[in-house]
Amino acid sequence: MQAASILIDGHWVPSDTNEFFQASNPTTGQVIEESFPVSRWSDCDRILTQAAKAADAMRSMPPTRFAEFLECLALKLEAAKEKLVAKAHEESGLPVAPRLGDVELPRTVSQLRQAATAARNGSWAMATIDSKANIRSIYEPLGPVVVFGPNNFPFAFNSAAGGDFAAAIAAGNPVIAKANTSHPGTTRLLAELVVAAIQETKMPSAMVQLLYRTSHEDGLRLVSDHRIAATGYTGSRHAGLRLKAAADAAGKQFYAELSSVNPVVILPGALAERMANLVDEYVTSGLMGAGQFCTNPGLLLLIDDEASRAFVQEVTNRYQQAPAGTLLTKSVQRSLSAGVETLKNAGAKILAGGEVVAGPRCAYANTLLQATGDQFLKDPVKFQTEAFGNAALIVLCRDRNQLLNVIKDLEGNLTGCIYSAKDESDDEDYRLLAPVLATKVGRILNDKMPTGVAVSPAMNHGGPYPATGHPGFTAVGIPASMIRFAKLTCYDAVRNHRLPKSLQDKNPTGEMWRSIDGRWTTESIG
Amino acid sequence: MQAASILIDGHWVPSDTNEFFQASNPTTGQVIEESFPVSRWSDCDRILTQAAKAADAMRSMPPTRFAEFLECLALKLEAAKEKLVAKAHEESGLPVAPRLGDVELPRTVSQLRQAATAARNGSWAMATIDSKANIRSIYEPLGPVVVFGPNNFPFAFNSAAGGDFAAAIAAGNPVIAKANTSHPGTTRLLAELVVAAIQETKMPSAMVQLLYRTSHEDGLRLVSDHRIAATGYTGSRHAGLRLKAAADAAGKQFYAELSSVNPVVILPGALAERMANLVDEYVTSGLMGAGQFCTNPGLLLLIDDEASRAFVQEVTNRYQQAPAGTLLTKSVQRSLSAGVETLKNAGAKILAGGEVVAGPRCAYANTLLQATGDQFLKDPVKFQTEAFGNAALIVLCRDRNQLLNVIKDLEGNLTGCIYSAKDESDDEDYRLLAPVLATKVGRILNDKMPTGVAVSPAMNHGGPYPATGHPGFTAVGIPASMIRFAKLTCYDAVRNHRLPKSLQDKNPTGEMWRSIDGRWTTESIG
Repeated sequence: MQAASILIDGHWVPSDTNEFFQASNPTTGQVIEESFPVSRWSDCDRILTQAAKAADAMRSMPPTRFAEFLECLALKLEAAKEKLVAKAHEESGLPVAPRLGDVELPRTVSQLRQAATAARNGSWAMATIDSKANIRSIYEPLGPVVVFGPNNFPFAFNSAAGGDFAAAIAAGNPVIAKANTSHPGTTRLLAELVVAAIQETKMPSAMVQLLYRTSHEDGLRLVSDHRIAATGYTGSRHAGLRLKAAADAAGKQFYAELSSVNPVVILPGALAERMANLVDEYVTSGLMGAGQFCTNPGLLLLIDDEASRAFVQEVTNRYQQAPAGTLLTKSVQRSLSAGVETLKNAGAKILAGGEVVAGPRCAYANTLLQATGDQFLKDPVKFQTEAFGNAALIVLCRDRNQLLNVIKDLEGNLTGCIYSAKDESDDEDYRLLAPVLATKVGRILNDKMPTGVAVSPAMNHGGPYPATGHPGFTAVGIPASMIRFAKLTCYDAVRNHRLPKSLQDKNPTGEMWRSIDGRWTTESIG
Repeated sequence: MQAASILIDGHWVPSDTNEFFQASNPTTGQVIEESFPVSRWSDCDRILTQAAKAADAMRSMPPTRFAEFLECLALKLEAAKEKLVAKAHEESGLPVAPRLGDVELPRTVSQLRQAATAARNGSWAMATIDSKANIRSIYEPLGPVVVFGPNNFPFAFNSAAGGDFAAAIAAGNPVIAKANTSHPGTTRLLAELVVAAIQETKMPSAMVQLLYRTSHEDGLRLVSDHRIAATGYTGSRHAGLRLKAAADAAGKQFYAELSSVNPVVILPGALAERMANLVDEYVTSGLMGAGQFCTNPGLLLLIDDEASRAFVQEVTNRYQQAPAGTLLTKSVQRSLSAGVETLKNAGAKILAGGEVVAGPRCAYANTLLQATGDQFLKDPVKFQTEAFGNAALIVLCRDRNQLLNVIKDLEGNLTGCIYSAKDESDDEDYRLLAPVLATKVGRILNDKMPTGVAVSPAMNHGGPYPATGHPGFTAVGIPASMIRFAKLTCYDAVRNHRLPKSLQDKNPTGEMWRSIDGRWTTESIG
């Protein structure tokens, strides 16, 4: 049978290659029939040239056009729900319901609509006007953006429909989607809807292009090419850091979400108050989606006492009893296995699981490991090995000072949670620990697990290195995530009629927030 | 005589070194007597440890404290004007008046005061509140910042008093000042005032520390050290890119201002209308401060016709007649010489100057070079060689399409100017050229030379690579420049009394702008 085509400038064309790959169904362990091309540089080169042209065309468009496209695509995703969900389930093993159909697809559609609203409103671009000096600045489109989507969200972070995609387009940039190789078929279905939406809303045919896979070397070349402006990457730390180095050397922006163990601290007062609830919360969050979330709570920090040990015992029981979820791919299974081995070799004790589930299905036993604060502090790097999936490390600290020291040794993470008593009994501990934890994470939570990442303007799905490459940006949350794909342009003494509409005296919509002479307003000047 | 001491944790202490350097007086060519240490890693290591402690102390301080310090320092700079200006003149050759005393020092003082106001007001941190979901985010201090100041602004960009310094401290971070080796004495005087202001306002003694010079290797180690959060660098592209690579590899933020030739386009209608004025403007801007501005208009783009040739002839006459200004250092003289040679070797014709001014003074003849659009397009990289100082390249293009192609081949620049007729006669050209130029520069100007960089909230002193490392940030303009030294932190379901004051329901001052549920306001919640 014929291999799938790639998408160049609105056309589905055969890749200029003789190398192909196939995805697998992780539930059955079977290879899925359709094959997809591994592009060579010639494909990338054609795509890049077209993307640069699309960027030029998009620069002169009113942002309502981007909004119309995104809204059109949102409708198409809703209409194709059944087909999309079936394919994503086949390729990812994630449950059709509620996960794919009732949670992730609606979230993806909502992201597209929020991005459309943000594009139309224009406030995301933070127009800043010094009316006296006639100096005006605003964030403008940056240029073609490569999006590498992760394996764990076939819709919401998909390179052809997810958060980075929506943010890049809403900010006025073309997207080169690099499919995640674990769900190429899902990505192709999404890209087909994209093509239809492009045609319907008369957008540049190369506004979104798709390739499925390249060699590592061509990946490095892609993110550092002169026709590219930025990359949005969500994936493994190892591959991400190689791409980041190539992009950095070329002066290209590389927004990466690389890894996170997401420390959770449960303070003694909380345990004393509501142990059963906490066990529920922790187990539910830790095993949701077989733990395959960037924000999975993979590192639990407790003060070693009787209550903690009882908590750990109960969590262990629950981990042993719960069925092991399906992992996304054999590769996830392998690296989870390797992560657990690293933790074991560092001296962590296995409380539950610790082995591959036999059979064709991709699965690993729900796994809990335990170490002491002393052990952690002796080798903090090894004990922070990410075991992506349904595994977690519990560190029992001697006292709160040792807990503080463990927090001080944490790498950058996306999230950090502190559970405390509802009354003030944990407040002293909180005041000691929270300010330090806050410097290590992008988001700090109280009495709440980190797995939910609301698409809120106030969200930060980001964090200090190595969680991401820049602690000032978020990948989730509109409009904030759009600013990653924009450049600041200042108009100094530029005549009013030559200014972008958003910087002219008259507020273009009456609804765009602009900072005029130090005051945020939706009013016009004069 | 004894070498100068370095500043560690509030104490002036001898450097742990046996290597020293001296600055020179560029006006006389004489070495200045006082010697300064070249620090070894042991100095850096001590400074880094103290900076990390200061960062911890600063995190719990109300921002009014930073404001009080900055305002105290501003007063001290004003009081020490005579001494500061004399020393800066000795070390830089820049005129005492108006430049140093009447322009640069007042600008520096004003920057400190603007930064103080911004710190006190808090709006810079862009607090964003989703009141329904109780998710709240804000920019918070990032941690210790290394500042490398450039040679050309002994006050306004000084690592111990200038723009990056003020922005880093106003955002709540300690500064490690790396003196520019061309004006160590000026930097020391400024740091002495800083120490006095730290004592007077009871700030952490290691909030500002100073070293004068390190080996290149230790510089790389410094910007990538785990105790450092970010670097602000203004200087040569070569050194900057090496430092950037080291910082990037360690996941550290590196805000660099690297180089810029600042293209100026003068359209035919403007020349027809006001040639004499344009000659004045261009010559004044090009030769100001011997051309030693990051925003010096070093690349003039014209359409080749009779008027242009008359304009070039007049500018040439003026360049030949004007006295050559004093250059900052022998090193500036050497690299200017090398830059001119590169342009000559690429085929540019010398119209004026092109040689070192004989004698002990650091100076180079006012230099104009000329090339055709054809020549430029054949080797755009060489023809964009920065000749930092009183030299410029004029490119005569065949027609406006060739001019457009030259603009398309431009590297990233800080600024780009277009001069056009006051009536509409140049509007068609403008519409063709300006959108492309805008993608290449951080700031686009109309009928105005780029050398003035107003300290305005709407300023962008930044631009696409290689002008800077990130096109989304500005180094000048408060509060925008502060965001470089901040991390985004999200508080998800955090109890109100545990939130930073700026995110609590009650607006902390009644004057801080916050985005609450999509609306910018200074009101409190509820």
